[in-house]
Amino acid sequence: MAKQAQTAITPTREEDYPEWYQQVVRAADLAENSAVRGCMVIKPWGYALWENIQRALDAMFKATGHVNAYFPLFIPLSFLEKEAQHVQGFAKECAVVTHHRLEAGPDGRLIPTGELDEPLVVRPTSETIIGASFAKWVQSYRDLPLLINQWANVVRWEMRTRLFLRTTEFLWQEGHTAHATQQEAVEETRKMLDVYADFAENWMAMPVIKGEKTAGERFPGAVNTYCIEAFMQDRKALQAGTSHFLGQNFAKAQEIKYLSAAGQEEFAWTTSWGVSTRLIGGLLMTHSDDDGLVLPPKLAPAHVVILPIIHKDEVRAEVMEYCEKFAAELRGLTYHGRPVGIEIDAREGRGGDKVWTWIKKGVPLRLEVGPRDIASDSVFMARRDRGHKDRESLPRAEFVAKIASILDDVQQSLFDRAKAYRAEHTRRIDSKDQFYDFFTPENREKPEIHGGFAECHWSGDPAVEEVVKNDLNVTIRCIPLDAQPEDGQCVISGAPSKQRVIFGKSY
Amino acid sequence: MAKQAQTAITPTREEDYPEWYQQVVRAADLAENSAVRGCMVIKPWGYALWENIQRALDAMFKATGHVNAYFPLFIPLSFLEKEAQHVQGFAKECAVVTHHRLEAGPDGRLIPTGELDEPLVVRPTSETIIGASFAKWVQSYRDLPLLINQWANVVRWEMRTRLFLRTTEFLWQEGHTAHATQQEAVEETRKMLDVYADFAENWMAMPVIKGEKTAGERFPGAVNTYCIEAFMQDRKALQAGTSHFLGQNFAKAQEIKYLSAAGQEEFAWTTSWGVSTRLIGGLLMTHSDDDGLVLPPKLAPAHVVILPIIHKDEVRAEVMEYCEKFAAELRGLTYHGRPVGIEIDAREGRGGDKVWTWIKKGVPLRLEVGPRDIASDSVFMARRDRGHKDRESLPRAEFVAKIASILDDVQQSLFDRAKAYRAEHTRRIDSKDQFYDFFTPENREKPEIHGGFAECHWSGDPAVEEVVKNDLNVTIRCIPLDAQPEDGQCVISGAPSKQRVIFGKSY
Repeated sequence: MAKQAQTAITPTREEDYPEWYQQVVRAADLAENSAVRGCMVIKPWGYALWENIQRALDAMFKATGHVNAYFPLFIPLSFLEKEAQHVQGFAKECAVVTHHRLEAGPDGRLIPTGELDEPLVVRPTSETIIGASFAKWVQSYRDLPLLINQWANVVRWEMRTRLFLRTTEFLWQEGHTAHATQQEAVEETRKMLDVYADFAENWMAMPVIKGEKTAGERFPGAVNTYCIEAFMQDRKALQAGTSHFLGQNFAKAQEIKYLSAAGQEEFAWTTSWGVSTRLIGGLLMTHSDDDGLVLPPKLAPAHVVILPIIHKDEVRAEVMEYCEKFAAELRGLTYHGRPVGIEIDAREGRGGDKVWTWIKKGVPLRLEVGPRDIASDSVFMARRDRGHKDRESLPRAEFVAKIASILDDVQQSLFDRAKAYRAEHTRRIDSKDQFYDFFTPENREKPEIHGGFAECHWSGDPAVEEVVKNDLNVTIRCIPLDAQPEDGQCVISGAPSKQRVIFGKSY
Repeated sequence: MAKQAQTAITPTREEDYPEWYQQVVRAADLAENSAVRGCMVIKPWGYALWENIQRALDAMFKATGHVNAYFPLFIPLSFLEKEAQHVQGFAKECAVVTHHRLEAGPDGRLIPTGELDEPLVVRPTSETIIGASFAKWVQSYRDLPLLINQWANVVRWEMRTRLFLRTTEFLWQEGHTAHATQQEAVEETRKMLDVYADFAENWMAMPVIKGEKTAGERFPGAVNTYCIEAFMQDRKALQAGTSHFLGQNFAKAQEIKYLSAAGQEEFAWTTSWGVSTRLIGGLLMTHSDDDGLVLPPKLAPAHVVILPIIHKDEVRAEVMEYCEKFAAELRGLTYHGRPVGIEIDAREGRGGDKVWTWIKKGVPLRLEVGPRDIASDSVFMARRDRGHKDRESLPRAEFVAKIASILDDVQQSLFDRAKAYRAEHTRRIDSKDQFYDFFTPENREKPEIHGGFAECHWSGDPAVEEVVKNDLNVTIRCIPLDAQPEDGQCVISGAPSKQRVIFGKSY
């Protein structure tokens, strides 16, 4: 295991936010770069977090009537060519398989041989390959709706990568559905957006804004793209999940047709929606602090770490036995459908180093248990959502009785804090000067962390998007679904506008 | 959904076993071929089975101290070149990524551009890429053992493929562990073999023989390969799982070194072990009959299907309400750690067609519920392990009280039947003539289904393996771990031998 720094993360968020991010990932042992350009290794602590995300989401997908299936990793080039917009958006940066064999060359090095007649693309997303199956599966209106989800790896050849946030290969789920009517497909698109928002807020404790993307930010080939936008601690937005209404575009390109009850041949209406391991980056940047990772209890790989305090060898056996018994008692409890996860850190070494290991791994509750605590049958508890020196002693029985409510309280406090942070850095802006000032780092005391969400009028003119993108690297994050109609003028162009949208910088 | 044939599978096992297999897969809607050569689509019913396999195995891996992680899909060519034997065994038939970009050519068709400096192989197995991480993670004896598992897709460019049994892309788990001592690594190899055998027998109801592979059948780069060998209904063996002791071969090739407690630099000892979606093919061929798929209850996506019997529209509401209430009652129960899975087939259509749909999907219990059953508060039950006409009426309350024991009885009966079938077709053979006769299809009444397991003496001479492979397409499936020492002569060469091994044809 990599050596752990003995105290807080260096640098702090204020000093160098991107580097702080890398160091939090590293100190928590979540993931690391691999020898393969842009591909990460998800380490056990990071993968356990992903497993918890998967478990919760998968149950939500199944509760809304979806079933899982699995489709090929490879997509023939000709499939990508079918949907014109899709190919423009997606076919550019892909891993392309051109050979199916390796042979030793004259110098003993391996060389690719066995060239394929048609190259295969490693899926960047699976609309086209799944659509080919849907075209076979859907014959009659009785076969609809078709509600499918896939858990899979996908590859997009990214030039600049960052662990979890943007990697060449990443893990995700992609829902793909086909419906008999436009209305049903639109309802599905919105329903899954609601599922994502519910998951983000109630499991990740990450507040999100539900909205629609502007035309320029749509998924290639979609009629509408909906998204959840989260707010990071450098005041940038993170697009955390998307749900696309694809209209009949893919159905027409792929011939997903059905015979209606009236005996007419009709094209189906399709949707797709996905979230990925990027959520882990979002979770990290929503909650973590200068001490390291902070995990929401509902998704934490372990809820509690027990740190046996052993100052003398004579007490070791007694302390360890007490801790093991205590751990077994806690493991018998469940918290939101999972057994309470307990780690006991029985490693040799300095107590301070051990405490810091678990602070940096983000475990919600730390319990120190030494001879004095055993004598009083109590535990010395620290909560990860509070400062690391903020600890309290409470009777063991009381802790056991209250553990679920303590964890719920941590979960809630993380959500409340994140929501307050977002509110603090969200501004209604109605003048171009203020807009430019808000998003210009040189105007700020802390250039690394500045700006936020700007709620501004926009007339719908794509030229405005281009201007703020070029000038400030700012985009319209979304047109919020809950926005109230309001007459005004576009903050940039002054053109008449009917509602405000969210502007921000983003990952 | 594909149209279902209305009665039993055509052809039968005896008529054409390979075609029967394809038709069982199709009738159960488990999977289908895709447009991508050798890659299958795992359909929802097949994937639900895989999810149940995953859930049970994953719990067993975790209970034996393993944690999950995720490593890159791509392996640089230079990594494969490091272990000489491994590269010979694995590098031949791989998907090779050579480009990372697509551009529209003069005719508008996409062409690969952006050639990579070093081609990447889509992982056929991950020893080399995971070993690169292990080399970084292992520094001191305190970092050992390292017990990692990965759930992933892998690709091997197979020339002849069959759904589940041999596909270009397949899903699997691969365990990779590193240890400080040879003994610990050997123990791990054997422990995971035991886990596989336990799973095969107690979850899949598929009897297996635990054994060691001969040198010629070892995993490329392994010191010893252990396996579980199952017995299919065409009397061929299916290698259902393997566990490899890799010695220090990979550790030396990849520099997985640690500082011992004594301060010496040592190479680690490594293992790897895996099972794949091939298990689904094995499960199918162990239990299914001429009526279609038969599922062991512990892994069945649904345990019970309720078939409402509605002969007149007037009774529809009453029957459906009763069925829904009954289903809710059953779903509240658990069976081996999962809620009891219930399907209600409320489709319109002929009752006979509906019954056959579920027979072919292999659901362990079918319950017909009509007005007469409701009047007597009873259910009309059929078990999938018995003939499709064998049905019995029992009081609903009794069924609910007994459901777990009925399902256990189905599970046990499948295991017993499979074990008896294997015993019936296992022979101790001590003469070459009998050996050739046993494995020669022309000598048999049913050429498609013949032979079996031959327990024979073998001296350890690889030349004998080559002879029977060339003459009969027979291999040594394994040297059973529980074989008793026994003096004898090799059944082919007559050379002195100390024990019997298992010969058979195989998938």
